[in-house]
Amino acid sequence: MIGTLTLVGVGPGDPELLTLKAVKTIGAADVVVYPQKPGEPSLALSIAEAHVGVDAVRMPVNLPMKVEREPAQLAYDQIGETIAQLLSEGKSVAYLCEGDPLFYGSAMYLVERMSIVNIAIVPGITSLTATASVVGRPLAARNETLKILPAPLDSEKLIAELGQTQSAAIIKVGRHFDRVRDVLNQTGHAANAIVVEHATQARQKITPLADFAKDERPYFSTILCYKGDEAWGK
Amino acid sequence: MIGTLTLVGVGPGDPELLTLKAVKTIGAADVVVYPQKPGEPSLALSIAEAHVGVDAVRMPVNLPMKVEREPAQLAYDQIGETIAQLLSEGKSVAYLCEGDPLFYGSAMYLVERMSIVNIAIVPGITSLTATASVVGRPLAARNETLKILPAPLDSEKLIAELGQTQSAAIIKVGRHFDRVRDVLNQTGHAANAIVVEHATQARQKITPLADFAKDERPYFSTILCYKGDEAWGK
Repeated sequence: MIGTLTLVGVGPGDPELLTLKAVKTIGAADVVVYPQKPGEPSLALSIAEAHVGVDAVRMPVNLPMKVEREPAQLAYDQIGETIAQLLSEGKSVAYLCEGDPLFYGSAMYLVERMSIVNIAIVPGITSLTATASVVGRPLAARNETLKILPAPLDSEKLIAELGQTQSAAIIKVGRHFDRVRDVLNQTGHAANAIVVEHATQARQKITPLADFAKDERPYFSTILCYKGDEAWGK
Repeated sequence: MIGTLTLVGVGPGDPELLTLKAVKTIGAADVVVYPQKPGEPSLALSIAEAHVGVDAVRMPVNLPMKVEREPAQLAYDQIGETIAQLLSEGKSVAYLCEGDPLFYGSAMYLVERMSIVNIAIVPGITSLTATASVVGRPLAARNETLKILPAPLDSEKLIAELGQTQSAAIIKVGRHFDRVRDVLNQTGHAANAIVVEHATQARQKITPLADFAKDERPYFSTILCYKGDEAWGK
């Protein structure tokens, strides 16, 4: 009897934003896998830790963010083999994913390399809706288009996409902040844009884009953009 | 002491996809408000019912989907006044929202009409991530743009938006199904498109778009679109 691998979305940071299904799945798992950089705490584990079974094996994995390059591929191959071995032993494996496993998650890079039949997904609260909830403003309503735009996209592409939309969320901002701010100034979205760092976590910070000093940059942030003044809460 | 209104996302349908925070908020509420059409069951209540306190007042509301028209405005005004009265009496009010309150939710139309200071939001699992989880395919990865496109948008707009993107979700499909299918055939997204009805509910149905008979139409569905063959799980 082969075991089951479940990708469990643990949400954006607040442990209360775990779903009942996530709690149940994590508690029943023989092995709990979670991303962790060497020497750093694991956000995913910290969110879920209270629910990990006392007898469960904890397996931190250091997955590179980019899967294309050679060392990254080796890391994914190794972790994939380890999990496949656990499944062949009939173990239930819960793989903790920050946010939602299928919304820009990196666990899917692992799974797409494995030939797994018994895979289940527990959806999680995304950073997107978490960000909106702490700001208290709708992401989109009625028949508006909502665009999720990764900041590493080139400026031309970002400008083209933003030009046609009222509501957008810029994710993966990081070192692209200065360029993204320039883009938003150019497209008219800057005035109502709000930068949210670490939504729902203790270190959460909400700042209007306009209030950032020239040399200041947010980290792990999402920028919610609204053009016009129709959004609720203005 | 004025009470608090909390918009509580109850997720897509599976009661296990409630968050711990939603369960706690619902259980502690003096009054639980939920959308319900006359003579029909309330999906939001059915998801949350096990957690409603025994002494809580249950308050079904029949909110029109469109807020612009005259009778709808009266309905919103009345419900807004009722809730404002409850808050002035110090009551805690939980307003149950299918999915997430700020992701195309209709409760926000109510809130934007009220002058409320004490409002809290509990984010919920969206139909978007729920749909992806039951299909088992990523919504978006790496630096892909993800677009949420309401089906009532005119075909020209849909075609323009889809032309520039690999990953999109068409929501609010309903009576627009035939036209949306034509659009997806035209943009090259039809071959990999999957129609999901009632994701995570007992009546859930997953059908490749190509398998729909000419006169058949899905109801309450989301269509996940992928162009190209890069998506995992193909």
